[in-house]
Parts: sequence; structure tokens; C-alpha cells
Amino acid sequence: MDEKTMTSEEAVIEAVDRALGGKDLQELSTVVHQLSASQVIDVAERLNVKDRAVVFRLLPKGQALEVFEGLDATLQGELVQGLKDEEVALLFADLDPDDRVGLLDELPATVARRLLLGLPPEERDLTAEVLGYPQGSIGRRMSPEYVVTHPELTAGQSLDRIHERLEDAETIYTLPVLDGQRRVVGVVSLRDLMRAHPQEPVSALMHAPEYVQATVTAESAARRCADLRILALPVVDNEARLVGILTVDDALWILEDAESEDAARISGSEPLRRPYLATPVRNIVRSRIVWLLVLAIGATLTVQVLSVFEDTLEQMVVLTLFIPLLIGIGGNTGNQAATTVTRALALGDVRPRDIGQVLAREVRVGSSLGLLLGSVGFAIAALVYDVQIGGVIGLTLLSICTMAATVGGIMPLIGKAIRADPAVFSNPFITTFVDATGLIVYFLIARAILNI
Amino acid sequence: MDEKTMTSEEAVIEAVDRALGGKDLQELSTVVHQLSASQVIDVAERLNVKDRAVVFRLLPKGQALEVFEGLDATLQGELVQGLKDEEVALLFADLDPDDRVGLLDELPATVARRLLLGLPPEERDLTAEVLGYPQGSIGRRMSPEYVVTHPELTAGQSLDRIHERLEDAETIYTLPVLDGQRRVVGVVSLRDLMRAHPQEPVSALMHAPEYVQATVTAESAARRCADLRILALPVVDNEARLVGILTVDDALWILEDAESEDAARISGSEPLRRPYLATPVRNIVRSRIVWLLVLAIGATLTVQVLSVFEDTLEQMVVLTLFIPLLIGIGGNTGNQAATTVTRALALGDVRPRDIGQVLAREVRVGSSLGLLLGSVGFAIAALVYDVQIGGVIGLTLLSICTMAATVGGIMPLIGKAIRADPAVFSNPFITTFVDATGLIVYFLIARAILNI
Repeated sequence: MDEKTMTSEEAVIEAVDRALGGKDLQELSTVVHQLSASQVIDVAERLNVKDRAVVFRLLPKGQALEVFEGLDATLQGELVQGLKDEEVALLFADLDPDDRVGLLDELPATVARRLLLGLPPEERDLTAEVLGYPQGSIGRRMSPEYVVTHPELTAGQSLDRIHERLEDAETIYTLPVLDGQRRVVGVVSLRDLMRAHPQEPVSALMHAPEYVQATVTAESAARRCADLRILALPVVDNEARLVGILTVDDALWILEDAESEDAARISGSEPLRRPYLATPVRNIVRSRIVWLLVLAIGATLTVQVLSVFEDTLEQMVVLTLFIPLLIGIGGNTGNQAATTVTRALALGDVRPRDIGQVLAREVRVGSSLGLLLGSVGFAIAALVYDVQIGGVIGLTLLSICTMAATVGGIMPLIGKAIRADPAVFSNPFITTFVDATGLIVYFLIARAILNI
Repeated sequence: MDEKTMTSEEAVIEAVDRALGGKDLQELSTVVHQLSASQVIDVAERLNVKDRAVVFRLLPKGQALEVFEGLDATLQGELVQGLKDEEVALLFADLDPDDRVGLLDELPATVARRLLLGLPPEERDLTAEVLGYPQGSIGRRMSPEYVVTHPELTAGQSLDRIHERLEDAETIYTLPVLDGQRRVVGVVSLRDLMRAHPQEPVSALMHAPEYVQATVTAESAARRCADLRILALPVVDNEARLVGILTVDDALWILEDAESEDAARISGSEPLRRPYLATPVRNIVRSRIVWLLVLAIGATLTVQVLSVFEDTLEQMVVLTLFIPLLIGIGGNTGNQAATTVTRALALGDVRPRDIGQVLAREVRVGSSLGLLLGSVGFAIAALVYDVQIGGVIGLTLLSICTMAATVGGIMPLIGKAIRADPAVFSNPFITTFVDATGLIVYFLIARAILNI
């Protein structure tokens, strides 16, 4: 962001903070009315629940919907609970069907039901279609408002159809081409239609279709849309009949959420599902405590291991000095491997069936790293202490890195294969396993080399 | 992905693997000719350099370009070095200007220069425009092939302009509106133009423009495009004059790379910049060894700390048993905080100037986590050993979690403020600091409570 934009952004944030701090509704209203919708969204994402609601009520009617649509579903749900019923019903009716579903998932069941019933019948049907799909599937995020054409229609006729739907279609830039049974047999772009002679049949213009089933995960559908670099991806039922369309801007949001989720889970937290500054402290604590407790319980394993070798430690207290270094390097090596493979899984670059290849690679990577680090470790420990200690450190590093990279590399694949989240599955298991096993290896090597 | 697609994908991969393994070019050619471009790309991303080149040479002419365009720049660069000059020149001329620049960055300077000179003059000029911008800026990733209109033109005249550019414009769906000095004064969509009366002036249809400067980072521009949920974002010079356009599909790729980069760096590796299975083992080792060495050197600090307290350890060997548990929890707490804040920074949810708020939050989060974990730790250690040991463990956990969360939370902000990559900056510093400081705190508390 260039200097000028940054300063004006900071100025906006400070102006709002000042007005809120001074509890001056008049000034706040003046400031807010000068902002674009996207500026209001940026600001709203930094406020707490109460202040966000205050700002939202001050928005001019035309902007309120645009701002509402731009917020995460979690924040939408909070706002809704603070508004009057008629205000909510209006907002709700103006949302697109796919956005409605995201919001409904955030509301208590009674509120959600009431909102649905308050919709006009055609809108309610459109929304019900989307609601019919399982949570997390692309069916719930797709839009049922598409324009279609048929192979036997002409380019001109297809353009006419687009003209009829200019107001409400989610996208007019990509048209699925359907046969007599509503099955997707091709796609044609608005550009193709404009380029063609009006009498040319769609069958001569259309491309082979790519599509996804409505039951696949939203993330995999969004990833496919991104990989294919298309503006919209048709969504079909299990007989290849069109049921909806996923547009690239929704794909972007789905992927952004998926990436936040992965980033959080691989570090052992639950995703916050709202902007950081808008998240109450207790929510952040809740998102992190679970895995720390799991980790703590797993770590008692290390306490056990060390108590088994307590006499060895008493004999050679110098062995204690290297414990944090060894398990630190082991943990990081495992984490590197797990992160790489988890990301590759997310991008579709590896699949669970590739476990053999990944295993082979990570064994080689881990032992290469272990060899390099072990040599360095040997040299330094031998210099500072003696050759035997150096030997213990060097061999332990070689073993730990090999084990850690291997376990770290295959854990996400195992997680994915048993339908767990690869990112969640990897983290605490790897840490605990590597720490505990690494310590056992350390002491066994120490006993062997130092004859204790 | 549904069952049917997964099986056909696996079948494709196996067929290609079989043909390559059997060194049967005839069979490989048959298999490859049956695949869609996106299937070829999927397969190519899993092969080593040699096999990928073999597959690429077998592609029918029409598909070769499409497949080439779909590969990461790193893989493109490899392929190019294995092709004949005329083949390369043809591919190169057919690429869009913004894609050319990505490829040029991967080639040796002599090859790059030769390719540029081999372009037709207008194409060379277009490419040179894009090359003129700094590495990593959006100027290098934008397309200089846009359609524009002017406020005084009518909807009908604008549609005519679009018709003239149907073949080569990067996008026809979003038109920047320029004044007499080429400054961006609005944007209008193809949908708006189609909806309007042909005589309606553009000035009545256009929306307030959003745009970015060509010198900002590609990632921030892509994030803005995503946040605004638009199909294309105009790119301007420092006088708001249009110089290019960023389309949402390119924004998606930029964000995908940026996320892979962050995911890798926060775990202490360098990003691979190519699909995992297509990356030689030595490249993976190189991507990880640097930070492990940095970590190892930092970890010698823990060896120092422990040697300072060696006599305390000799007196109470039981203190050793808890070392992995304490620094394991500390490290994870720090990592959670760093990951959360790094992700928030990437999404624009926090900025370096928010360091005060982040500090305040993470102190509270860290102490809450420390209180919870410390109570559990106290209870367990008191039961298994005695109340005093329990007290040491409990208080240490409280201190370590508070320190770790605080340091973990602000490190990414400091990194961003000094223009380092927040993800890179956080990882090894946090680990080393938390481990070393945590151990010091541990022993000081132990000495105080246990009177040693």
C-alpha cells in the first residue's frame, strides 16, 4: 500500500476511534458517512461487538447492505442479534441465497427459522435448495442463480437470455451449456458469445466443461476453480445435472478461510473465524487451550522417559545440558516436514496414496539434515567437552532428524486418509512422539558410547 | 472430490507412470493425447525434470501453450532450458505479457535477453512496460492489455470498444473509466453497460474507482482485489494514471504463492516454489537446513543456561524431568501467538501500529493460558512428587506462557515494521528466546521455592 493510502487509512481509523472514545455519536456519524463501504468494513473488523453495532446503525441505508455482505458470517451473526426484527428481515431478504446460508449457520435455530419463513416464497425456495446440502460442502456456498444455454441455441439467443437475467444472475460471464436432461455438456463465456456471429450455434462455441459435485468440500471446489483459472465453476448433482454455480470471488473467500484454518491448526490452535482485533480475549484463550492441554498430557510422556533414565542423568549431568537443543531441533524438523506436506495436500500436489513417495523422500531429507547438523553438533560438543560427548550428540541428531522428518511427513497423509484434518492431526502427535522417542534414543546412545 | 473423479484421476496418473516406467513413448503419447490440459498439468507437477520434459514434447501443438501457461514459473524455466530455441520463441510470443515476466525471472540473463529481442516490437514494448517495475511489485504481475472508456462516451460506444478488443484484452468484464489525462476516475462493468440504454453516458453508470499503485507489493494488491470481491483491479502510477490491470485469477495465484511462502517460513523453511513431488530432495534439504542451523546456534544458548545452573541440577535431578514439558509448552504457546498475528498481518486485520493492542491482548491470553496450565501442572506434580515441586512447575508454566505469548505476538509486528518477512522473523527468535529465558525463570523459581 502506498504512503498516501496508508496515511488516509490510519486517519480514518483514528477518526473513528476518537469519536467512539469521546462517545460523540454526532461526530461518529459524520466520519462514517464520509467512508466507502470497504473502509467501513476495514474499521468494523477492528472494533469490539458493542462499537461495531453502534457504527453499523449509523450507516446510510444504501451502504448498510453492502457493508453487511462484506463481513465474516460470525460478525454478521453478532450484528443480527443486536438489530430489530424488521431491520434483520430486510437485510436478510437482500442477501444472495449463498450468503444467507452462511449467516443462518451463525444464528440460534429459532432466529434462523424465523428469518427463513419471513422470506418471499421464491427466495425461500432458492435458499432451501442451498441449505439442503451438508455443512462444509460446496452445495452450501454455491449460487443457485445462474444463466444457462443449450447447444442448439444460437449465440444471439444466448445473449438474449443474458439480457433477461442481468439483474439477478450471480454471474453472466460464464454460461453452463445444458442438454435436454439439464446435464452440463459444455461451458461458454460471454466473450465467446460476443465474438461469435449471432447465428452461430452454441455447440460450435462451447468448451469441454469442468464441474464439481455439490457434495464435495467447499475447499476442494474452490481450489479447483483457482487451478483452472476460470471465473465460475458449475456445480452438479450425482447425475451431472446443474444445481448451482461457484463464482471465483466466493472461491477466493473460501480459500482465505481454509488457509486461516490450516495456519491456525498446524500451530495447535482452533481458527478464530473473525478478525484478530475483533475477537474477545476469552475466545482466543479458548482457541488455544485445548491443544496445549493435549500437548501437556502428551509431554508427561517425556517426564516418564526421563524418570526411567534418572540414574543415567545423575551419573552424567552434562547430558541434561543438551536436552532442549536436541528436542528443539527434532521438533522443528518434524514441523517443517509436516507443514510442507500439509500445504502440498491442500494444493492437491500430493494425495494420501503418495505416502510411499513421501516416506522415501522425507527419510532422505531427514537423514541429510541429520548428517549435516550432527557433524556440526559433533564438532562443537567435541571441542567444548570431549569426543565421546560429541559422538553422542552427533549420532542423536542424525537419528532424531531422520525420525522427525519421516513422522512429520507422513502424519498429515495418515490424517487425511482417516478423514481427520491433516493440520490438526499432525501437530501434537509429532511433537510428543519426537520428544519422547528422541529422548529414549539419546539416552540409549549415551549409555552405549559412554558405557554407563 | 467425488469417487468417480478421484478414480479417473488416479487412473490417469497410473497410466502415465506405467508408460514412463516402461519407457514406452508410443503408449505415453497415446495416454497424453487423451488428457485435458488441466490433467496434463496435474500429472506434470508430480514428475521429475526429465520425465516432465518428455511428456511436454509429446503434447499436441494446441495444448502445449495451455499446459505451459498453467505451470509455475520455476517449472516453466526448467522446461524452456530443455527445448530448442524456435520452440521456446514460439511459446514465449504466445504468452501474455505478465506471464512472460514471471518466466524471464527464472531464466539466465542471456536466455532472457535473447527471448525478449525475439519478440515482435509491439509485444516487446508491452513486456518491457511490465519489466520496468521492481521485483515483487504488482507492476510486474499486472496485464497491460486492458479496455478503457471515458465518462463522456455512451454505453453503446463502450460496448463497441469492447467488441474491438475481444481477442486480446486480458479482461472485458471490468472497464476502467479514464479522464483526458488517463487518470482513473471510475470503473464500469460489462454487466452495467449491457443493462443500460445504449445512449446513456458512462458517467451516469460508473462507480467510484478502487485502484492500487504499480509499486505496491503483488501480495497486497491481490489481497485488496480479494477483499473488494471484484473481477479486476486497475493499477496506476503515482499520478493515478492507468498503467495496467490485475485480474482476479492472477490475484488468486499471487495469494496462493504468498500463502505457501508464509506457511513454509513460519515453520522455518524456505518456500519450495514448486509442487512437492516435483522438487528434488536436495532442494528440500537446502530449504530447511538454514533455519535449523540458526536454531541450533540459538539453542546453544540453552546449553549455556543449563551449564550455569548445573549445580542446581545436580542437587535436584528431578528438575530435569520437567524440562522438555516446560519448554515444549512454552514453544507451542509462542508459536500459536506468532501464527495468529502473522496471519492477521497477512489479511490486513492488524498493522504494526497496533502493537500496543496486540501486546495487551497477548499478555492477557498468555497469563490466562498459564494460569490454567499452571494449575493442572501444579496438581499433577504435587500429587506425584510434592507440593513444593508442584509450586515450581505451576509458577513456571504461568511465567513461561505469559512471556511466550507476549513475545510470540509482537515479534511478527516488529518484523513487519523493520521490513523483514514477519513469518521468517518470528520463528527462530521466539523459540530460542522462550527456551533460554524459560529455563532461567524455571531455575530461579526452583531455587527460591526449594531453597537451593
